[in-house]
Amino acid sequence: MANLKSKDVVWHPGAVTKADREAVSGHKACTIWMTGLPASGKSTLAVALEKVLWDRGMHAYVLDGDNIRHGLNKDLGFSPEDRNENIRRIGEVAKLFTTAGVINATAFISPYRSDRDQARRIMGDGEFIEVYVDCSVNECERRDPKGHYKKARAGEIKEFTGVSAPYEPPLHPEIVVHTDRETEAESLQKILSYLEANGYIQRVG
Amino acid sequence: MANLKSKDVVWHPGAVTKADREAVSGHKACTIWMTGLPASGKSTLAVALEKVLWDRGMHAYVLDGDNIRHGLNKDLGFSPEDRNENIRRIGEVAKLFTTAGVINATAFISPYRSDRDQARRIMGDGEFIEVYVDCSVNECERRDPKGHYKKARAGEIKEFTGVSAPYEPPLHPEIVVHTDRETEAESLQKILSYLEANGYIQRVG
Repeated sequence: MANLKSKDVVWHPGAVTKADREAVSGHKACTIWMTGLPASGKSTLAVALEKVLWDRGMHAYVLDGDNIRHGLNKDLGFSPEDRNENIRRIGEVAKLFTTAGVINATAFISPYRSDRDQARRIMGDGEFIEVYVDCSVNECERRDPKGHYKKARAGEIKEFTGVSAPYEPPLHPEIVVHTDRETEAESLQKILSYLEANGYIQRVG
Repeated sequence: MANLKSKDVVWHPGAVTKADREAVSGHKACTIWMTGLPASGKSTLAVALEKVLWDRGMHAYVLDGDNIRHGLNKDLGFSPEDRNENIRRIGEVAKLFTTAGVINATAFISPYRSDRDQARRIMGDGEFIEVYVDCSVNECERRDPKGHYKKARAGEIKEFTGVSAPYEPPLHPEIVVHTDRETEAESLQKILSYLEANGYIQRVG
């Protein structure tokens, strides 16, 4: 490099903390952990939430099957052990995003209570917000946008949550949305209201 | 929830793209991949870079041993296979942060060329900036802040890069810094100059 300008560089040692980031961004960082049956509406809700928060000037990001299952966790299948490891890694990545000052929404079935509780435990107080995306299996199966329920009933997909693999609903989720009897806007507003009421984000208007 | 305000919610469907994020933040998102021997100065440089960028209003974040080895990759050791998987996962996480609009700096030995090239391949054009943190093994060993070289020489740590495990220097890194004969400020300025000259960040002043 011919153009060294070391005299221009001024910095103070030490990492940028989460609190530093929150002070500047004006919102808290947290993980909004959506859990629910396949086709219950987790990803749709997560993407809508990301957009609303981002439109309001916040740092928001979605972790979901599209960007995790084909990348970080492409070595994992759907056995109970692999599901554990899938959720363990997602929890760790969500923690990194939270540390980085981002409101991140995760949209994974995450069927086991113990896996979700582990993700909660590795985060700080108030950093983990569990959203139970409650939708009857009948309604999920009626929607079946990817045809997975149909294949699971036909035995073509093994260990399919809600059909041939268990789903353990949260016992004490911070938020419950009922996507089989609320509009998407209503479910989304529940989450925003929670974030506002608990000081994660600023109230609008 | 008693206070549904669905009428207040307005959003447009569709995820927030990297380009959307860059347009608002005023800087490009990328992964600045530091590679080099143990104690060559990768983490110090990454943390300093994060701070400078953040002080200039950018989204910056460091992935390093402190937040990865004790979390996401705590199940991995230092065998060649585990080093592969370690770097594979870090590359995937770095890609997520890049997609999220963040300039993220990774500070890992990442001794194998093929592993680094794999991380480069999963990212888009220009998203992966390899920084070879070049420092003679003698100087690294002289520093030895954690006493690891001493233990490796004594055989107490096996497969230690630079002593008993190989390090493959990059063939065509975007940036080379020589931490054994530059000040930290000079090395940092090289990286900033590269980012400015190539339009990742705006020039100051």
